[in-house]
Amino acid sequence: MRTALDLVRSFQANEPRSAADLAAPYRAVRRATESLVAPLSSEDCALQSMPDCSPTKWHMAHTSWFFETFVLEPTLAGYQWFNPTFRVLFNSYYQSVGEQYARPRRALLTRPSLDEVKRYRQHVDEQMAALFENPNPSHELAAIVELGIHHEQQHQELILTDLKHLFSFNPLHPVYQPRAIEPIAAIKTIEWMGFEGGLTSIGHGGSGFAFDNEGPRHRVYLQSYRLASRLVTNGEFVAFIEAGGYDRPEYWLSDGWNKICAESWRHPLYWERRDGAWFVHTLHGFVPLDLSEPACHISYYEADAYAHFAGARLPTEMEWEHAAERIQPAGNFVESGRFHPAPLGNADGGMQQLFGDVWEWTASSYSPYPGFTPPAGALGEYNGKFMSSQMVLRGGSCATPMSHIRASYRNFFPPDARWQFSGIRLAHDA
Amino acid sequence: MRTALDLVRSFQANEPRSAADLAAPYRAVRRATESLVAPLSSEDCALQSMPDCSPTKWHMAHTSWFFETFVLEPTLAGYQWFNPTFRVLFNSYYQSVGEQYARPRRALLTRPSLDEVKRYRQHVDEQMAALFENPNPSHELAAIVELGIHHEQQHQELILTDLKHLFSFNPLHPVYQPRAIEPIAAIKTIEWMGFEGGLTSIGHGGSGFAFDNEGPRHRVYLQSYRLASRLVTNGEFVAFIEAGGYDRPEYWLSDGWNKICAESWRHPLYWERRDGAWFVHTLHGFVPLDLSEPACHISYYEADAYAHFAGARLPTEMEWEHAAERIQPAGNFVESGRFHPAPLGNADGGMQQLFGDVWEWTASSYSPYPGFTPPAGALGEYNGKFMSSQMVLRGGSCATPMSHIRASYRNFFPPDARWQFSGIRLAHDA
Amino acid sequence: MRTALDLVRSFQANEPRSAADLAAPYRAVRRATESLVAPLSSEDCALQSMPDCSPTKWHMAHTSWFFETFVLEPTLAGYQWFNPTFRVLFNSYYQSVGEQYARPRRALLTRPSLDEVKRYRQHVDEQMAALFENPNPSHELAAIVELGIHHEQQHQELILTDLKHLFSFNPLHPVYQPRAIEPIAAIKTIEWMGFEGGLTSIGHGGSGFAFDNEGPRHRVYLQSYRLASRLVTNGEFVAFIEAGGYDRPEYWLSDGWNKICAESWRHPLYWERRDGAWFVHTLHGFVPLDLSEPACHISYYEADAYAHFAGARLPTEMEWEHAAERIQPAGNFVESGRFHPAPLGNADGGMQQLFGDVWEWTASSYSPYPGFTPPAGALGEYNGKFMSSQMVLRGGSCATPMSHIRASYRNFFPPDARWQFSGIRLAHDA
Amino acid sequence: MRTALDLVRSFQANEPRSAADLAAPYRAVRRATESLVAPLSSEDCALQSMPDCSPTKWHMAHTSWFFETFVLEPTLAGYQWFNPTFRVLFNSYYQSVGEQYARPRRALLTRPSLDEVKRYRQHVDEQMAALFENPNPSHELAAIVELGIHHEQQHQELILTDLKHLFSFNPLHPVYQPRAIEPIAAIKTIEWMGFEGGLTSIGHGGSGFAFDNEGPRHRVYLQSYRLASRLVTNGEFVAFIEAGGYDRPEYWLSDGWNKICAESWRHPLYWERRDGAWFVHTLHGFVPLDLSEPACHISYYEADAYAHFAGARLPTEMEWEHAAERIQPAGNFVESGRFHPAPLGNADGGMQQLFGDVWEWTASSYSPYPGFTPPAGALGEYNGKFMSSQMVLRGGSCATPMSHIRASYRNFFPPDARWQFSGIRLAHDA
Repeated sequence: MRTALDLVRSFQANEPRSAADLAAPYRAVRRATESLVAPLSSEDCALQSMPDCSPTKWHMAHTSWFFETFVLEPTLAGYQWFNPTFRVLFNSYYQSVGEQYARPRRALLTRPSLDEVKRYRQHVDEQMAALFENPNPSHELAAIVELGIHHEQQHQELILTDLKHLFSFNPLHPVYQPRAIEPIAAIKTIEWMGFEGGLTSIGHGGSGFAFDNEGPRHRVYLQSYRLASRLVTNGEFVAFIEAGGYDRPEYWLSDGWNKICAESWRHPLYWERRDGAWFVHTLHGFVPLDLSEPACHISYYEADAYAHFAGARLPTEMEWEHAAERIQPAGNFVESGRFHPAPLGNADGGMQQLFGDVWEWTASSYSPYPGFTPPAGALGEYNGKFMSSQMVLRGGSCATPMSHIRASYRNFFPPDARWQFSGIRLAHDA
Repeated sequence: MRTALDLVRSFQANEPRSAADLAAPYRAVRRATESLVAPLSSEDCALQSMPDCSPTKWHMAHTSWFFETFVLEPTLAGYQWFNPTFRVLFNSYYQSVGEQYARPRRALLTRPSLDEVKRYRQHVDEQMAALFENPNPSHELAAIVELGIHHEQQHQELILTDLKHLFSFNPLHPVYQPRAIEPIAAIKTIEWMGFEGGLTSIGHGGSGFAFDNEGPRHRVYLQSYRLASRLVTNGEFVAFIEAGGYDRPEYWLSDGWNKICAESWRHPLYWERRDGAWFVHTLHGFVPLDLSEPACHISYYEADAYAHFAGARLPTEMEWEHAAERIQPAGNFVESGRFHPAPLGNADGGMQQLFGDVWEWTASSYSPYPGFTPPAGALGEYNGKFMSSQMVLRGGSCATPMSHIRASYRNFFPPDARWQFSGIRLAHDA
Repeated sequence: MRTALDLVRSFQANEPRSAADLAAPYRAVRRATESLVAPLSSEDCALQSMPDCSPTKWHMAHTSWFFETFVLEPTLAGYQWFNPTFRVLFNSYYQSVGEQYARPRRALLTRPSLDEVKRYRQHVDEQMAALFENPNPSHELAAIVELGIHHEQQHQELILTDLKHLFSFNPLHPVYQPRAIEPIAAIKTIEWMGFEGGLTSIGHGGSGFAFDNEGPRHRVYLQSYRLASRLVTNGEFVAFIEAGGYDRPEYWLSDGWNKICAESWRHPLYWERRDGAWFVHTLHGFVPLDLSEPACHISYYEADAYAHFAGARLPTEMEWEHAAERIQPAGNFVESGRFHPAPLGNADGGMQQLFGDVWEWTASSYSPYPGFTPPAGALGEYNGKFMSSQMVLRGGSCATPMSHIRASYRNFFPPDARWQFSGIRLAHDA
Repeated sequence: MRTALDLVRSFQANEPRSAADLAAPYRAVRRATESLVAPLSSEDCALQSMPDCSPTKWHMAHTSWFFETFVLEPTLAGYQWFNPTFRVLFNSYYQSVGEQYARPRRALLTRPSLDEVKRYRQHVDEQMAALFENPNPSHELAAIVELGIHHEQQHQELILTDLKHLFSFNPLHPVYQPRAIEPIAAIKTIEWMGFEGGLTSIGHGGSGFAFDNEGPRHRVYLQSYRLASRLVTNGEFVAFIEAGGYDRPEYWLSDGWNKICAESWRHPLYWERRDGAWFVHTLHGFVPLDLSEPACHISYYEADAYAHFAGARLPTEMEWEHAAERIQPAGNFVESGRFHPAPLGNADGGMQQLFGDVWEWTASSYSPYPGFTPPAGALGEYNGKFMSSQMVLRGGSCATPMSHIRASYRNFFPPDARWQFSGIRLAHDA
């Protein structure tokens, strides 16, 4: 029989803390999920707007399933599942664990109810609490618990992006959290920050938690390059639209051109033109577009086309990480309670908005670093098997928990994905 | 401006009762809807399993929209809609009324909540109550109210069929209403009831309510024919399956054969084979198949193939109505609280199960009767525009309100539809 | 083993002629096919523009396959197939005969070449010639040969309609047969020809060949009705378009409206508007639309919508046949070499254009006549299994051989089909 | 007006030869195309088996269109197109040149006939011959002619791969060129060839022709690695199948697993199992699988899964090029007339089969090299716009002209493409 030990041996954690140390972060993250869900009705939590999205209720249950599957069951002798059917219902994509309930059908499940899912979470929390009291847990167990905490933070972001997508179809324009409209800020011109080329290293290498796909740290050779000091704004993206950006194939990758023709894309997701003015669907309602905010809900295709239009290019993930390593993550994260990108304001010089606001598309496809091997067993399915036809995004967004992000963090989505908080930072050869 | 009068002049009602007379039936039908919904959670009411189905909540709101659109707004000067957005959200398919929210997206609406929909219903009921106190309402208005009552009964049936379909995807097997399993009844052999051919008339002609598609009453010439005294049972349908019915193209219409190959149909909807025994998903749970019950959730293709296998054919709708005209509607309707077809039991001789249990597929495609003209205006869209590529079903089902059915009633669905309570009565040339 | 006798017993032929009598018609029909194909290159004969169409070469081979399968193999002891693979390759839809090469893939077959298909036809002709010399063939055999002859005539029409569809995609506008443009004829106003209702009979009943679906002859009761004296013209259909016919849902069946929205239909198939003038793709090239010609390449949905617009309706097939029985088939058939509908010209009074020019959509769905039973065996698949979701058309077209048509002839296509030469005759209640 | 000069300034050619020097290579390549087509009938040349493939006739015309569009028209004053409609018909994907006839419809064109396409080619050849006599052509013009020559070589390979795909649907198993079956060769064990890591350079940098995507030459840092001395064989791939390779998700990328499930892939393209033995469709017919040949018609997904199964990985394109730079291209190219991968035979030690036989999938997605900018104008669409969701393949195949390949050559296809001659070389970290 497979044990926690087996699972963990295959997982690349660095210096796992002891289980007892994890009790507080565990509780904090679990409570953060519940606080995100608090403003929602049981109906809000049950629906799903496309196969890539999941109902809030499903996210709440799946993150609990993760602890039940990878921590409680292998550790506690004779552990009884809260409900054995949940083993299949809330398995996302772990083939090694067994069957999965089909993703596009997650919106067909009226049961378990939201109340029962809350009871499920409470049950798992109680079992975990018992586990944390173990005076002598293994380092391996601690590593999986830590993974589960970071896993739940990833789903916190998805709860917000999936909910935003769902609400966007409702002509009643539901509001997740109201917010006063702010005056439009003045935006400074982009400065170009230079970086010397040469042999350097990227990838997670130090202590602290990281996902397996962030390592091993390895040498890369970079040409000299320049990065824009800030993100591309809505105002700048409007200029692209007004210059016929969506009508001129010369800006677009061939796949991108086919996509915008097939889907009749004429602007970023959630934008709408009414009587000559731009409006946008947000988590605080349907509001006039603020031109000073970072452009958001942009696909890779649109980011790349914009870069061509602007006579620039997107940075590679190596260039991005090399620039970001020197900078302490700070910015507009989920904790701000804004749930929306923020205008830059009167920032001092230097690199701005590298962390938070919007995930930044890079020109790098999602591939394994040299020496990367996905671990054996179910947790080996966490990252490695998705390394195909996706692009890397960096830096976190206004829906990301701040404690979740770091310079080496690699997010990834297909080039046509738009429902994440994703935007554009430009780059140039030196 | 369009008035209720215009709408009604175009609607073929026979001897409409006065509005005051309709107050009691109105209240009774509205309460019946609420009583059907009572066992459901707000999540149960919000989801939709395919574009042909709608969320319960939508049915509750749409039937109220019908009264608001066709009765309250044209009648009450300065009528204010409960919520103007509902005009689009809950319009099913009335092009003349204006835009409709896309049918396959009805499951994307978390708002209005079930509670708000209930308030909507209450609001409409109050306004209707005021209307009913009018001492001198027009006959035309009464006709539309009566139509609205029958319209709501149609949606009561759909609430049950759509809910059953939705629950069928849930491995937790939700139960709408529990029921004890009964001993299997003995089933009598089919008797063949003869009917003399000749010139006769069919179609609604007398007093009482009928939909426009049931008239005009008109002459038809029938060849002599015979009808089976009862419905085909599950046991008989199992024999078809065991004889390779789903593997032998010679039994099937070409479209039907293509359908069962493309969709891998091997048995009626909701059946499942486990360890050599048949089980079936019902509104009282996932239970062993009762071989003595009428076969149900059968498409026209399957009904026609079964008839070929049995050396018989399906009756035309003229034959069915000619036989049914002499018989008072009675049987297993929604009022029985069974929500499932019932075994025949020890019936006396004669035609059995003509009404209730399952809708009976006829060999007749849904076409206008001679002299039928769809009325002008929005209510002309009620029936006429669907007279293409659908087959007629007769007799009502265990989900139909008894007061809703009559011998001339024409239900219609595409030949591949299976989620209604639909079954088979055989016929023969004399 | 199955014999010709078995096949024939199941086929409803009336008074089959002897095989020897069929030698001349057989040769004539086979030569007619070759003469239709003569102007085409081997490339023209090899391609297929949609799954509903077939390459010319396939039609040439399939009609030969029919004789090989149903006449030569069962009759001649030890008969060797010209090429055993052809048994599958050129089987259209006869499940009882065995596998079929998938219809949408018929355009993937570069081999057999057109030359080899011609050799195949010659081989079959030689074998058939030997058969015809048999002094004493059975009546049953003669019946199948006669069926094969009529079957080949059906495919002659399809060769033309499928080729026209294929050529329509080519911006080089290939011409099948050139023709001088004629002056536009004056068109007489429609007269309404009255028919008394009452009990009458329709269906094939006399001597001479007919397909099984044309019988049995049976009684029907008709209400009094009126038929338009001629077909609807292009000029009249243009008036429908200019009145916004394709923008007004009130004219359309629900399925039809969905279809024209989904496919962006704005006019009949093959029409094109250039600089404000209408042009049309024909077998004699891309030419200005002649407003005096009968409207053609119209779907049932468009025919029905036009009838609504015109304040009329389509005739039922019973009404059509009742009117046509008195009239000798004559008109613009394939023998005219025009391959296109012709303006009416200075016709005398009475019913005009009932036969030839365009197939006339009726309001009748394609169903079995009372007492119809598809014969057992492969030839039972000829007609009966298609009696679902299709509408009946009557009268033949400019691509139909004159000897092929009769008043009782039932053609059938789905309501959205447009690539046949199909048009509109209006009807009215009396 | 755009001139040849403009086009050429934007194209990155190195040391273009003079136009006169190109006359001989031009003629040789054009003749090679005609010689490839010689065994085919006009029907063979007209058909298309999927949107990714084109009819042979189209390849013949498109390569001529390239010279007409990019050389003749901009150079010769008052140049008259052979047929102006061809400008659209044979434009593949050059948006800047104008409209394109839709790719999936290329099989709807029976005209121009093969004969007319041959006349088209002759016309272009004559015009080009006149051009070559110009005593003083520009270097720029020479560069475009050279590009056109290499472009035509690419289409020579596609003629073979597309034809093979088309023939595979024909149960008559057409043979492009017969070949005797050879005895199965013994296959040596794979040796692992080591390469020292460090800073190195890749990309085209020297003299001679290269496509723009092969440069600029640039520095990369490589970890030490090992490459398999030879390609994976059919025998080795059969072992993967027999070990349940297609049933075990742990070997597969997530996208790959979804693909093989959705399409029911159980083996490489063109393989078929009959009575327990493997057969394969080839250009010399349908023959028993030779286990000693390199595995071929493998998607990236299958190559990657096989590498996991074998405890190895695929090489990056940097690793591949670094190893190949030292080796002179030689091997089983199209000139061998084999049109199929060949067993290795008794090779000496060292790297084998790097060039020819099969394109080798690399682990690298197709991205721009540092400093790459697609040239402005139509020829800028040649490569750059396809740098999305494709993987790089290296080394050429048995369908590639030998003069066409080099170590820096980057071919690219989506990860699910299988109809190219594509196979597997394994790699390892050192």
